[in-house]
Amino acid sequence: MTTGVKIATIGGGSSYTPELMEGFIKRYDELPIREIWLVDIEEGREKLEIVGKMAQRMWDATDYDVKIHLTLDRREALKDADFVTTQFRVGLLDARIKDERIPAYYGMLGQETNGAGGMFKAFRTVPVILDIVEDMKELCPDAWLVNFANPSGMVTEAVVRYGKWDKVIGLCNVPVMATMLEPGLIGKETDELIYKFAGLNHFHWHKVADAHGHDVTLDLIDKMYQEDNGLPKNIYDIPFERELLEQMKMIPCAYHRYYYQEEEMLHHALEEYQTVGTRAQQVKQTEHELFELYKNPELNYKPEQLQQRGGAYYSDAACETIASIYANKQTQIVVSTKNNGAVPDLPADCVVEVTAYVGGQGARNVAFGELPVAERGWLQVMKAMELLTIEAAVTGDYGTALQAFTLNPLVTSGATAKRVMDELFIAHKKYLPNFAETIQRLEKEGIQVQDEIARNLDAVKV
Amino acid sequence: MTTGVKIATIGGGSSYTPELMEGFIKRYDELPIREIWLVDIEEGREKLEIVGKMAQRMWDATDYDVKIHLTLDRREALKDADFVTTQFRVGLLDARIKDERIPAYYGMLGQETNGAGGMFKAFRTVPVILDIVEDMKELCPDAWLVNFANPSGMVTEAVVRYGKWDKVIGLCNVPVMATMLEPGLIGKETDELIYKFAGLNHFHWHKVADAHGHDVTLDLIDKMYQEDNGLPKNIYDIPFERELLEQMKMIPCAYHRYYYQEEEMLHHALEEYQTVGTRAQQVKQTEHELFELYKNPELNYKPEQLQQRGGAYYSDAACETIASIYANKQTQIVVSTKNNGAVPDLPADCVVEVTAYVGGQGARNVAFGELPVAERGWLQVMKAMELLTIEAAVTGDYGTALQAFTLNPLVTSGATAKRVMDELFIAHKKYLPNFAETIQRLEKEGIQVQDEIARNLDAVKV
Amino acid sequence: MTTGVKIATIGGGSSYTPELMEGFIKRYDELPIREIWLVDIEEGREKLEIVGKMAQRMWDATDYDVKIHLTLDRREALKDADFVTTQFRVGLLDARIKDERIPAYYGMLGQETNGAGGMFKAFRTVPVILDIVEDMKELCPDAWLVNFANPSGMVTEAVVRYGKWDKVIGLCNVPVMATMLEPGLIGKETDELIYKFAGLNHFHWHKVADAHGHDVTLDLIDKMYQEDNGLPKNIYDIPFERELLEQMKMIPCAYHRYYYQEEEMLHHALEEYQTVGTRAQQVKQTEHELFELYKNPELNYKPEQLQQRGGAYYSDAACETIASIYANKQTQIVVSTKNNGAVPDLPADCVVEVTAYVGGQGARNVAFGELPVAERGWLQVMKAMELLTIEAAVTGDYGTALQAFTLNPLVTSGATAKRVMDELFIAHKKYLPNFAETIQRLEKEGIQVQDEIARNLDAVKV
Amino acid sequence: MTTGVKIATIGGGSSYTPELMEGFIKRYDELPIREIWLVDIEEGREKLEIVGKMAQRMWDATDYDVKIHLTLDRREALKDADFVTTQFRVGLLDARIKDERIPAYYGMLGQETNGAGGMFKAFRTVPVILDIVEDMKELCPDAWLVNFANPSGMVTEAVVRYGKWDKVIGLCNVPVMATMLEPGLIGKETDELIYKFAGLNHFHWHKVADAHGHDVTLDLIDKMYQEDNGLPKNIYDIPFERELLEQMKMIPCAYHRYYYQEEEMLHHALEEYQTVGTRAQQVKQTEHELFELYKNPELNYKPEQLQQRGGAYYSDAACETIASIYANKQTQIVVSTKNNGAVPDLPADCVVEVTAYVGGQGARNVAFGELPVAERGWLQVMKAMELLTIEAAVTGDYGTALQAFTLNPLVTSGATAKRVMDELFIAHKKYLPNFAETIQRLEKEGIQVQDEIARNLDAVKV
Repeated sequence: MTTGVKIATIGGGSSYTPELMEGFIKRYDELPIREIWLVDIEEGREKLEIVGKMAQRMWDATDYDVKIHLTLDRREALKDADFVTTQFRVGLLDARIKDERIPAYYGMLGQETNGAGGMFKAFRTVPVILDIVEDMKELCPDAWLVNFANPSGMVTEAVVRYGKWDKVIGLCNVPVMATMLEPGLIGKETDELIYKFAGLNHFHWHKVADAHGHDVTLDLIDKMYQEDNGLPKNIYDIPFERELLEQMKMIPCAYHRYYYQEEEMLHHALEEYQTVGTRAQQVKQTEHELFELYKNPELNYKPEQLQQRGGAYYSDAACETIASIYANKQTQIVVSTKNNGAVPDLPADCVVEVTAYVGGQGARNVAFGELPVAERGWLQVMKAMELLTIEAAVTGDYGTALQAFTLNPLVTSGATAKRVMDELFIAHKKYLPNFAETIQRLEKEGIQVQDEIARNLDAVKV
Repeated sequence: MTTGVKIATIGGGSSYTPELMEGFIKRYDELPIREIWLVDIEEGREKLEIVGKMAQRMWDATDYDVKIHLTLDRREALKDADFVTTQFRVGLLDARIKDERIPAYYGMLGQETNGAGGMFKAFRTVPVILDIVEDMKELCPDAWLVNFANPSGMVTEAVVRYGKWDKVIGLCNVPVMATMLEPGLIGKETDELIYKFAGLNHFHWHKVADAHGHDVTLDLIDKMYQEDNGLPKNIYDIPFERELLEQMKMIPCAYHRYYYQEEEMLHHALEEYQTVGTRAQQVKQTEHELFELYKNPELNYKPEQLQQRGGAYYSDAACETIASIYANKQTQIVVSTKNNGAVPDLPADCVVEVTAYVGGQGARNVAFGELPVAERGWLQVMKAMELLTIEAAVTGDYGTALQAFTLNPLVTSGATAKRVMDELFIAHKKYLPNFAETIQRLEKEGIQVQDEIARNLDAVKV
Repeated sequence: MTTGVKIATIGGGSSYTPELMEGFIKRYDELPIREIWLVDIEEGREKLEIVGKMAQRMWDATDYDVKIHLTLDRREALKDADFVTTQFRVGLLDARIKDERIPAYYGMLGQETNGAGGMFKAFRTVPVILDIVEDMKELCPDAWLVNFANPSGMVTEAVVRYGKWDKVIGLCNVPVMATMLEPGLIGKETDELIYKFAGLNHFHWHKVADAHGHDVTLDLIDKMYQEDNGLPKNIYDIPFERELLEQMKMIPCAYHRYYYQEEEMLHHALEEYQTVGTRAQQVKQTEHELFELYKNPELNYKPEQLQQRGGAYYSDAACETIASIYANKQTQIVVSTKNNGAVPDLPADCVVEVTAYVGGQGARNVAFGELPVAERGWLQVMKAMELLTIEAAVTGDYGTALQAFTLNPLVTSGATAKRVMDELFIAHKKYLPNFAETIQRLEKEGIQVQDEIARNLDAVKV
Repeated sequence: MTTGVKIATIGGGSSYTPELMEGFIKRYDELPIREIWLVDIEEGREKLEIVGKMAQRMWDATDYDVKIHLTLDRREALKDADFVTTQFRVGLLDARIKDERIPAYYGMLGQETNGAGGMFKAFRTVPVILDIVEDMKELCPDAWLVNFANPSGMVTEAVVRYGKWDKVIGLCNVPVMATMLEPGLIGKETDELIYKFAGLNHFHWHKVADAHGHDVTLDLIDKMYQEDNGLPKNIYDIPFERELLEQMKMIPCAYHRYYYQEEEMLHHALEEYQTVGTRAQQVKQTEHELFELYKNPELNYKPEQLQQRGGAYYSDAACETIASIYANKQTQIVVSTKNNGAVPDLPADCVVEVTAYVGGQGARNVAFGELPVAERGWLQVMKAMELLTIEAAVTGDYGTALQAFTLNPLVTSGATAKRVMDELFIAHKKYLPNFAETIQRLEKEGIQVQDEIARNLDAVKV
């Protein structure tokens, strides 16, 4: 490495970029950045310019001499980068609105990560990340890829399995939130507890012990039923069945509500669909407000409102990961990474989300040991669903996509599910080149998106 | 063994018994039976007597000197038995009516084998089969147990895992039907094709090759979409999505419809619930008619009407299994048995349903090899669900039951599912001694069965 | 297939060919052969002609019209073949003499299958079999490959793993001998017993039960210590330690003596080395005598003397395998084939030797279940050694060869072992093109074969 | 815990105890010890008193108020202990002399850990450690057991598998030496490198990367062949074959010499046997000298000479482990501990030796990922040998012992090996109560120890 670190951020026009800047600024001493390249696509040019100027203002307010470069040319940004972070959203929030509204029209869940929506998000994202990896092999073969584009676990799996690129770490803020909020429930600080996570992205469990090694998981569970359980804001807050948690003796992640309380989560999603709009529609409004704020030429720090947006700490986790790799810190972070046996119930070569010590060699996973029967079953079916989804994304095979859809525990199989899948193919046509043949067939069959708002998003765009 | 074979049939008052007799009669030359003991409980005394007399008439119409013994004393029947067959139904058809109606009341599927109903069937049946095994250890330690009480796979798993009894084979008529009906679709006889099944009871797939070893599975699938696919009568006949079958390159079993076409199967079940009554209610009527027939003192052969009843060939498979063990025939039969590696995606010590060669040592499973990703995922989650269900049946632990319920792909998790489970506990109180504590708690909480027919079954009974 | 079966036999000049002919003749009714192509190389031309004429005489003495073709052009023979059998020996018996004498010179075992010799036999054979497979893909893509060239298990593994050819079955006469000779020890016929084999070629164990399913393995073991244990002639006959067999409750194969009684087997081999000559030298004499017999223009049947030669029944097993595939007989045969889970202690995709039902689709393995701890350890180390050996054969990597050598339980690691390996490289130069670079280096280093007889074999040859 | 930590050291009369004291003294700030109980048996009373006084002097020379208690009553020492360390040697050095000399008499290796000697060491030690665990369950159920009695891996496995005690960590100084000595070879400090170990005790490999994550293992290997390779003193220093290390791309441990250079190691051992005496005889002399030093009432620090004794740093590793658990330090240490998937080629529930982060919950293993084929084979056979050895130690079954012996790669199977085993049984009669029946049989058969020195050790003792 020459003096100073070069960062390339794909999807640099994201509203999260200021958090990323804040994270880098606060770690400058251990991570001496020289330049940051924010990359976006033509559709995101305006946002890129707003957030890019804001980012430069943030650095200018410090003593550090860091230059923010804005570009629509990904290859220019990747050239000789030391770290590449990916936070892009193929099709922007409008695509997520479709992911959510099209299933909801038929009374089904369109959850953006593991559900029907998440699968289409994977279909859109996987080919792009694999392109990025190909560019990296050529332009920055020593760089680390730090991904927090969703679905983060599947994206990481695609990078390892199909991209054959091991220098990748996938991140998520869900474990961060858990380790920040839970200790207070039992009057402890985070560093007084020993955390052990295992599972998949948005589908993990954890156990907690105190500094003497005594398991306090059941104590935490007990407190959760007494007080506000303090789990992340981006998930509707339904309590888990207590008997379930006591049987597993682990704490599930917030997203497990979709699997353990499917009825209520669906009910809530459909209620929003029929009233205030789906989560993506709400986020779109929040984002609009954030960018209005960012336009303020006086603003040179991360505004409080960004914290309110679900996904807080995502970028901070990315900065910590990068600093830990750069400075070989061996920091404990929960990451998506190649299993290597840490979760022995899954193949050693697939990607899992586990507690790891992150340093110069990337993640050194803490071996969790075998999971209880129920969680083993859940994990194995979810990983199979992920693998099928990624395979479909890469091959464009309709049957494989249908297998993934059918296997997904959040999808009720049958004619409606197939209809939902078909409409999603039509709706995302622009971003699914691998499925071109399928989409052509569906168009010939006259499949049309029924949800009016989703359908009109395209009309408006063009 | 002394001269002649002693058979003990637990649940001997079943309407299937005449098929069993027919099967034994036709195999007398290789299986020289001396005596058959039909065992039932007090509640089934009347049926036992009707069917017992009919059975004796069937044998009397042959040249063979076989004595039918009727008894309510299981231990007397088991004493020195060579083969024990189990075809009992704890709580009779009324229990199945509850299994089906209580979930249906809440718009959920109460399928009697793998669904919510099947889990309670397992809760009722597992303790009884384990009692039988304990008796066998004492009274007929060399006997083979041939089970076709449902859920046949879970019952066999319980016998092996908790009963520590390896001389057991579980049977099902679903594979029999497939191998009988499919060959005709491509103008072949059964013995001109090579069949290979793998999976779990009511959850298996198969591949078919012709005598030259060429895979004809896709040809068969193709024919199925052209003609009546000839699958068993006890499952509502919805076509699978063709792309799904073409992707897996295997033929699923009829019960896979519940998983691959959940929406339609649920719709159909609810429609029956609201009109003609659930499947168990229909079967109860058929059974009534059958027993009226059996009363005819002239009838000395299996009546045609029994064939119409779902479950045909079940008993014949049992007779063939027994004859194959007795005469060391090494016959190809699809059985539930200890895996031993035949399905490498599942632990070697769990029970699977596979093609096996059955002879003096029981089943020698044909190693199927690894399944494709989707089917691996399905199998692993279903086996986990089975293991949890059996564990709950044995321990009576509510949390474990809830885990099994939540993991079951046919159950939509949440408050309603828990309510359904709780009502089922109340409804089956009499047959769930291991859950006494839970049921007492639920009674205190005032849980009552809401479906009127299900609730009144008890009233009538007492 | 057109009318009648075409067989191509690579290594057709082998002294075993008459047994192969006898086997085909006796099965003509179920395996209607049209023509047999015996292929050999220039070095084997004379033998090919002698044995070829003899083979034709054998057929001419029957009512069947079968034509024997002799050729040095492998491709001509393979064209449109239905079955390809491989029984070639790269470098002929002289190569085996080197395999045995070079280690023996240094006091080490040069066993021709699993030992140091066997590894070099694999180095020589694997590239040739992979060439044959490439030819088959082009010239007879529907044919089955039935291999009995040694080391049969490694050759089959190479075909499956590197040749990507699944229509292969590897054979060995060791299990045949066991099932023929053992039953008599307890007064039974083979078909009155149930055999179950599992392991690797020349490294398997078996269990035996009577027709009632009672395990009689310990009874057989007991008899073996009272009488002549009747194990194959090609292995020096040292009794196993009885406590060992009683602990494993299985019967090892004859070759296990090399592992369980290494001291005695080595002693015996060195004694022969210093006196009558190694096994290959003895066999060479036998072969010479056999070919003298074969020259007799009156001889039109397999002579008794062939039976005396170790390896009897090898060819008969091949004929039975071919007939079983052709006529979809589902015969029980012990074969080397893809595991598919039958031996769950080894990966599902590697080749094992197990009891299988052989029919139109090839081998359907009987799932053996997990092995006891000791045998699991043995199997896993031996399979690793095999995989390394094959990898070295394909890549020509010296380090990989050395790893295989070091791991081999019959090789005492250290400088002498390395010296032996180096001399074997030099000695087999002609047949190890993949190792050309290594051999060149060793020649530069001045490595020379020390055993005079082995060294002079080359001198004579050229 | 009350104020201050109570340590119980079983085998407290060991010559290593001063190192243990030094380790505790230097960590007093993070590990505030209140009292240390040194336990020994009657035979070791004199040494216990010498070393106990010395230990007290060492503490008295500090500002800390720590009391050394000496006792022959283990239960008194265990009562309410916080940490139990085990460093005992059943049968003292004389037993090791037998372990080494009896095989050597027959030209075989009697290595004290993995070889024939190691197996008998396990036979002697396992029952004692299991007794200790039973006492701990009663007297100090919250304590951690830190074992460095050899064979450390097998002892730890026995504690976990048969003792059902998970709060145990096994230690060894071999990895410590590697991480201390290697970095200097490439001009680095230990903390500038990233180490990853995996395998079994005395049978592990490691990989090394620099702080940027670049693998430097091959650089280190390169240096080792240029300079003194700096491996531990207790192993005779024969260079590994370079091609072997380059193929595995890992660094083996010093003890691997027994497996990779068996010939030379055996030669060296036999040379010592015939001249200066075996290693144990040499150590016995060293120990004698050490105790002479310890008697000096002025000596209140660890003497330099102890460092010379093989096994240096063992005790320091123990102190660091204890401090890390007590203060939840999450220190990187290489430990023997339950696998939990860290070495995916071995069962998740067996004990392995791996890099771990040690804290309040004990060891959190770093998942190493799958090993290359050769090392996988080695590991699997060695773990099988360990499991058999432990099983034999617990059950006293001769056949199981013979299986373990036969499987052991350092034992050449056959009559001599069996003879060696039988003599070892006779020689260790006093310490092998589980094998009483076997030993009685062998005595009847007239088995006698042939090595004169070994035989006379007993004579002297009694």
